[in-house]
Amino acid sequence: MGIRIGVAGASGYAGGELLRLIAGHPEFELVAATAHSQAGKPVAVVHPHLTGLDLILTETTPDVFADTDLVFLALPHGESGAVAAALPASAKVVDLGADHRLHDAAAWTRYYGGEHAGAWTYGLPELPGQRELIAGSSRVAATGCYAVATTLALAPLLHSGLAEPDDVVVVAASGTSGAGKSAKVHLLGSEVMGDLSPYKVGAHQHVPEIKQATGATGLSFTPVLAPMPRGILATVTAKPTNCDITAGVVRAVLADAYGDEPLVHLLPEGAWPHTAATLGSASAHLQATVDVDSGRIIVVSAIDNLGRGAAAQAVQCANIMFELPETSGLSVFGVAP
Amino acid sequence: MGIRIGVAGASGYAGGELLRLIAGHPEFELVAATAHSQAGKPVAVVHPHLTGLDLILTETTPDVFADTDLVFLALPHGESGAVAAALPASAKVVDLGADHRLHDAAAWTRYYGGEHAGAWTYGLPELPGQRELIAGSSRVAATGCYAVATTLALAPLLHSGLAEPDDVVVVAASGTSGAGKSAKVHLLGSEVMGDLSPYKVGAHQHVPEIKQATGATGLSFTPVLAPMPRGILATVTAKPTNCDITAGVVRAVLADAYGDEPLVHLLPEGAWPHTAATLGSASAHLQATVDVDSGRIIVVSAIDNLGRGAAAQAVQCANIMFELPETSGLSVFGVAP
Amino acid sequence: MGIRIGVAGASGYAGGELLRLIAGHPEFELVAATAHSQAGKPVAVVHPHLTGLDLILTETTPDVFADTDLVFLALPHGESGAVAAALPASAKVVDLGADHRLHDAAAWTRYYGGEHAGAWTYGLPELPGQRELIAGSSRVAATGCYAVATTLALAPLLHSGLAEPDDVVVVAASGTSGAGKSAKVHLLGSEVMGDLSPYKVGAHQHVPEIKQATGATGLSFTPVLAPMPRGILATVTAKPTNCDITAGVVRAVLADAYGDEPLVHLLPEGAWPHTAATLGSASAHLQATVDVDSGRIIVVSAIDNLGRGAAAQAVQCANIMFELPETSGLSVFGVAP
Amino acid sequence: MGIRIGVAGASGYAGGELLRLIAGHPEFELVAATAHSQAGKPVAVVHPHLTGLDLILTETTPDVFADTDLVFLALPHGESGAVAAALPASAKVVDLGADHRLHDAAAWTRYYGGEHAGAWTYGLPELPGQRELIAGSSRVAATGCYAVATTLALAPLLHSGLAEPDDVVVVAASGTSGAGKSAKVHLLGSEVMGDLSPYKVGAHQHVPEIKQATGATGLSFTPVLAPMPRGILATVTAKPTNCDITAGVVRAVLADAYGDEPLVHLLPEGAWPHTAATLGSASAHLQATVDVDSGRIIVVSAIDNLGRGAAAQAVQCANIMFELPETSGLSVFGVAP
Repeated sequence: MGIRIGVAGASGYAGGELLRLIAGHPEFELVAATAHSQAGKPVAVVHPHLTGLDLILTETTPDVFADTDLVFLALPHGESGAVAAALPASAKVVDLGADHRLHDAAAWTRYYGGEHAGAWTYGLPELPGQRELIAGSSRVAATGCYAVATTLALAPLLHSGLAEPDDVVVVAASGTSGAGKSAKVHLLGSEVMGDLSPYKVGAHQHVPEIKQATGATGLSFTPVLAPMPRGILATVTAKPTNCDITAGVVRAVLADAYGDEPLVHLLPEGAWPHTAATLGSASAHLQATVDVDSGRIIVVSAIDNLGRGAAAQAVQCANIMFELPETSGLSVFGVAP
Repeated sequence: MGIRIGVAGASGYAGGELLRLIAGHPEFELVAATAHSQAGKPVAVVHPHLTGLDLILTETTPDVFADTDLVFLALPHGESGAVAAALPASAKVVDLGADHRLHDAAAWTRYYGGEHAGAWTYGLPELPGQRELIAGSSRVAATGCYAVATTLALAPLLHSGLAEPDDVVVVAASGTSGAGKSAKVHLLGSEVMGDLSPYKVGAHQHVPEIKQATGATGLSFTPVLAPMPRGILATVTAKPTNCDITAGVVRAVLADAYGDEPLVHLLPEGAWPHTAATLGSASAHLQATVDVDSGRIIVVSAIDNLGRGAAAQAVQCANIMFELPETSGLSVFGVAP
Repeated sequence: MGIRIGVAGASGYAGGELLRLIAGHPEFELVAATAHSQAGKPVAVVHPHLTGLDLILTETTPDVFADTDLVFLALPHGESGAVAAALPASAKVVDLGADHRLHDAAAWTRYYGGEHAGAWTYGLPELPGQRELIAGSSRVAATGCYAVATTLALAPLLHSGLAEPDDVVVVAASGTSGAGKSAKVHLLGSEVMGDLSPYKVGAHQHVPEIKQATGATGLSFTPVLAPMPRGILATVTAKPTNCDITAGVVRAVLADAYGDEPLVHLLPEGAWPHTAATLGSASAHLQATVDVDSGRIIVVSAIDNLGRGAAAQAVQCANIMFELPETSGLSVFGVAP
Repeated sequence: MGIRIGVAGASGYAGGELLRLIAGHPEFELVAATAHSQAGKPVAVVHPHLTGLDLILTETTPDVFADTDLVFLALPHGESGAVAAALPASAKVVDLGADHRLHDAAAWTRYYGGEHAGAWTYGLPELPGQRELIAGSSRVAATGCYAVATTLALAPLLHSGLAEPDDVVVVAASGTSGAGKSAKVHLLGSEVMGDLSPYKVGAHQHVPEIKQATGATGLSFTPVLAPMPRGILATVTAKPTNCDITAGVVRAVLADAYGDEPLVHLLPEGAWPHTAATLGSASAHLQATVDVDSGRIIVVSAIDNLGRGAAAQAVQCANIMFELPETSGLSVFGVAP
């Protein structure tokens, strides 16, 4: 008898990826998957890639999750607070939305609007000490997709004192699934194929989350929509505290931070991350150097925004919460080409 | 102690997919992976998506596979005959290349050139009686990518007598990985993105294989290169033997052929196959109708050319040869979006 | 003083392409562009690629086109009849929609629904005698995008008696702009990138149009949505009337039909059409062979569905109607790579 | 009788775009197009999108350009110096390669290797005073593709004193045609589709060119390969000299710099550049803001790397050199979607 799992918000892209991972998880048993406008439809109609998974999506009611051991919430920002409050206290919860990530209620209101639902344990196990906090929590807020890509690259630089925290510049490009599955003209295939375009320039809602997770005090963050379904490539640059820094020193700090991690990989020298290499996986790929002209540290990270950036990370947290092997049901390897 | 597996030709796209599947297979243990020009390099350098898989590619010598239970051959057409001949008789072999597929030596010479290596058991388990033959074989020739997409759609029509065998028309489009990993100008990203183009029109080497597998006697086959890395969509049309035929009758024949198959899915009425829904999976998706104007039967199938069309199918055959559950190490579900 | 041009339905993809071509036309002057929900917005906001074109979209009212010499109608199917009826008799009209293409009112009702608006001169100048009819008409119905790709490939085969008209099989794939600019989930970039999928299988509304234009009596037509913004590749196969036919004979018939045409190009022997080579142009590219196994004639054509398949063809017709050089304001060459 | 034009290096992507623009130019007449390995082939075989342009590529010999008024050099870096030296002094020359861009011979040797060919007039007409210098020159070095995208965004900030020159951070993504047309595995469609990856991180050869053109003293530049054939999106951030700066002030400086320019467009407030909107055009699109968290100025620019970033810019310079209207033969508008 497996660990009984529920998914709220199963009709979106992160929800679909959760269903796929749960279906392949050796210990998890999917018992309930809910949706709003798609309630009543078979999973395989809403997600044709899950043809063969026989389950009907239901409405998100209080009792549908009554008998679950863990519920994943993959709801739009601002909706998970209310749903979480109605869940049985006995069920563990991992929230893939933003509602429970920020400690700073004012930052929440500024970037998301509305009332802050409060902060849960932050679900990025590779941060120092965080794995232990997650293991002891029954409520975990999984990291935002841009935040995980940026934080994995940046946190070791700041925690080690290698880089100044006040002049971090990040440009991160994401595949279109990060923008969700609702029908909008600017997300049509005709619009996005062959196109790169920035959005929310100068004020993205992941900024306070990244600052909270890394200790950065000044962060310029520009997100770009890229012509591919999945993947985030984050280019993170920061000023070194010591201008004699070398690429080798930066690599050593990253190796030290992630050498034992199963899901974060510092690539061999000379190899730079490819988002395509992480597709469908729970892995993050990193590489670093020092700019010869400006002296800035440059760390580039690649993840799958729906995998490591959402569903796979949530499953990783759940594995920790149930004391399972951290990679249970997850793939270290991407699907490529 | 797992089943010991070797892969010859591990640096190409099908070889990479084999490594990925073997790494995730509960019973298989990868003991040797060989390549030609890439010998001596770590797998993760040749296949960045397999970062975390610690293995060095070696040259294809007689003794590297001495201690294996099964060898997958993912070599260019015309090369597997010689390699297979040098393998220990005790090792089972699945050939992903074309060398051992055709019974007709003249057809081999006409389409591939050179001398015919002889025919092995044909590796398409869903053909009537074929699963049993594969189970009893130590040498299996896995199906060509276009051939599996076309044959799964066409064989039930001809075997049931629903369609005439002499006027079959197939147009099938493939992602670029089907053309392999060697550097050619016409396969550059700049050339293929935004482009559809036919190739080998009027004389594709999979024609005799499809005829052999289905019993078709006249087959017009046009392959098209499509702007995506993976996936084959085959549109198969044939004249009905009875002009009163309905879509329901065609669907009933397909349901009868594949109702119990774990890896071939007749989609719900009204849903048509999407290649993206099969990415990374071992599944084939089918749908059928009858053309209102011409009365032709139309069956459309979608597969992942590297998955069901190559590596996943080879693993499916290997599972049968070792009496393992047929889907061991394979995913029924695609990675989407 | 130029020829005064109006565009009804200027906010869609075909409308945007019309505006682009009119802006570059040496004799045309754009005086009015109308839209429905986008009325009141500057053209450059609705079509960012037309930044620099200073014009506000207006509502489609009777008097906005009062002072025009020609109006292009780029409206949804079923809407141009009413708008056309309200236009001044003195204005020439080219309808890019389907409303005035079919002679057979019953076929219209069966495929489009509603009442038939009546047939105008069919706007495919390369059909025998059609250029002269267009020159003498003030009302022209431009060809459907799939219809032009198919008809250019098929008509010479049937008109010359080379092929049987009763067993034509066409599979044609189109870029996503052919599906229009309205927001639908199945057209999202996340859904279409990396995907091929058929639609309207067995009953596409262009079938009666193609039969009318070519004389085909039995036509199986399967459209496929391809992961690119623009382009149609049509694979047209037909049975020869004489089984001794050669590729050379087929090529000779096509060369005879189009040798003097500025916008239809039979490619050099061995070169097959690429949709990317026609992007942004008014050109159609053709190639042909005879299938060695089935003996079927195969002709493949490539066009830009918004160019030759819509706006460029409409401008070509308008040029003929005003006795201008036929390629005025049009590009023979595509934009590639 | 038109202005007689020659193109050296006509078989590459920039060369093909030059041929396309020259063919559509009202005053230019193409008299010679040369190539190396492709010499002897018809243009339409090498560039299928130029089907209809009847010209044979020839070897690059001294006398093939004897009778030309202007020669465009679209050769690999390091090759144009020798070819230019052999051209008749009477012919004007525009070099699209890097050989004659840098004033600093040491920077040339460091980034490109080999001996420096010397500096010509820099071909970016929108820089203050540069248009006049180009008009008076017979030798012009067209701007590098990344350099034009970055310089148009950055130069006004530094020239106006709005931004500090010593801490500029640029992340710029390019379509694959920027990497040229030679066959390399990492540029295969299978590799690049669905993928973002940085390259030459920390030391790109356009850095000294951008510093020379803008006056930047510290520049961190990270190029990224994006899954599309054409387009560059450059995200340029710099520290303001005055921390009270607003987006309005930045926009005013850009409006002042480019208000009269026909080919550089500051977009309406709230609209951000899309590379797809510039495809095939000579236009650059810009937008700016100030980051709310870091206070950095962010300017984003989009161009077509083969258009404004190469061939269209070279034609723009040639127009100025011949005192033609600056946009002759160029399109202000992109081809979209």
